[in-house]
Formats: sequence, C-alpha cells, structure tokens
Amino acid sequence: MSDLFDVVTFNDNGLVPAIVQDAETDEVLMMAYMTADTLEKTLATGRMTYWSRSRQEEWVKGQTSGHVQHLREARIDCDGDTLLFRVDQEGGACHTGYRSCFFRRIGGTGESLEDDGTQVFDPAEVYE
Amino acid sequence: MSDLFDVVTFNDNGLVPAIVQDAETDEVLMMAYMTADTLEKTLATGRMTYWSRSRQEEWVKGQTSGHVQHLREARIDCDGDTLLFRVDQEGGACHTGYRSCFFRRIGGTGESLEDDGTQVFDPAEVYE
Repeated sequence: MSDLFDVVTFNDNGLVPAIVQDAETDEVLMMAYMTADTLEKTLATGRMTYWSRSRQEEWVKGQTSGHVQHLREARIDCDGDTLLFRVDQEGGACHTGYRSCFFRRIGGTGESLEDDGTQVFDPAEVYE
Repeated sequence: MSDLFDVVTFNDNGLVPAIVQDAETDEVLMMAYMTADTLEKTLATGRMTYWSRSRQEEWVKGQTSGHVQHLREARIDCDGDTLLFRVDQEGGACHTGYRSCFFRRIGGTGESLEDDGTQVFDPAEVYE
C-alpha cells in the first residue's frame, strides 16, 4: 500500500494546491497551498494548516479569525499533484466574510460578475 | 460591474487553476489549468477546455475519450487566482476510468491510500 509522501508531488516552489470542500454541504470553500510540513501538520493535528504565499509563512486557518477548519477527510488525485480536503468550517472560509471564496458567479462569456454568495460575518469586526 | 478579465490573475506560466465540480452531485471531479485563451473558449463554447502542461497544448476535455464536460456554472474566487466550474460530466473525468480524479482517500497521517472511487469506464477500451 502506498504512503502519501511517496505519491504527492510538490511544484517548483515546494507547494501543492489544496481544494477545500464543506463536509456537510459539499460547497467548495477555497483553495490554498501546502508545503510538505503544513500537510503533515494538517494530518497530525486535524486543523487545516496552509502556506501563505503572500506572507511566506505557515498559516493555521482561523488563527486570526477563529474560523477554524476541522479536517474530516483527505484525498489525493490521480497524478498526485492536487489534494482535496473535506472540512467542518466554523464561520466563513473567506476573509471577505463570505462562507466560500467563490462568491462571484461569472456571467455570459465574462462580461459580468455577480456576487451571489452567503455573507456570514463582517470582516471589519473580525480583523481589527 | 467588473469584467472577468479585469479580475482573473494568471500565474507566471500564464495559467490559472480550475476546480471542476459535478453540477448534479457536487463531487469534485478534477483540477486542471487554463490559459486566457482556453478560458475564453470554455465560456464561448460551453465545452470545458484546458491547457495541458505536460503536452503544452490546448486540450478540449473529452476530445479523445468522448467524456466531454458541459459547462453549467463558472465562478471566481476572492483574489481572482482560482476558478470553479460546475459541469455535466459524460462518463468519467479521470483518465484512469474513475468518475473523479480524487479516488484515493488518505488514511491516518498518510500511511495509507485507499481507492474508494467509482470506476465508470475501462481506460484500455477508451484510450487505444
């Protein structure tokens, strides 16, 4: 039987993309990136932990906002270069206050973007 | 109102990741990459069209296998660097014959991988 770390492939920056899906509703909440280290920490702690490309640092989801993600299921794709996580999301996944980062629907061939997501918190109150 | 192409951000290779979700079941089927050109073609034709990083060419999903993906909904995330598509998938999304590329569940802290996906076609019969 394969070990995850024999199969997972990190890109040239040492990162693997992680798709995050709500374990209850199956809504896709966000995508983020993991290093080998943050992947190990996620599996060991059950708390979703990423690598912030903008801040170049480890990022335990919810450490600032309280909007923690609890790991329910982890999956890997056929060629080992993408991960999929099903999580219990507290509050909202998106820093804008929406439940999902994908709160904008693309209209037609891209002429318009419609916000139709669910706002679950006020970012001004959470990120002071 | 914003135009998609004012908002979407391509990486250093001119690509944006595209998460693909089954419009009926909400199962995440695969992740692939798009150029600006294949994104435009996807929206214009309603047939999911990607950029193959391994072959360095445009790739209309299903052109070899017949397992076409019909676009139902397109979304973009908060920072514009990931796309999410809901599709009607004919046959299976994965070249291995599984419905979803994420057919392997990660056990424990990565000691094991369990195939628990749904096999929907025999790749030996489809890719001759």
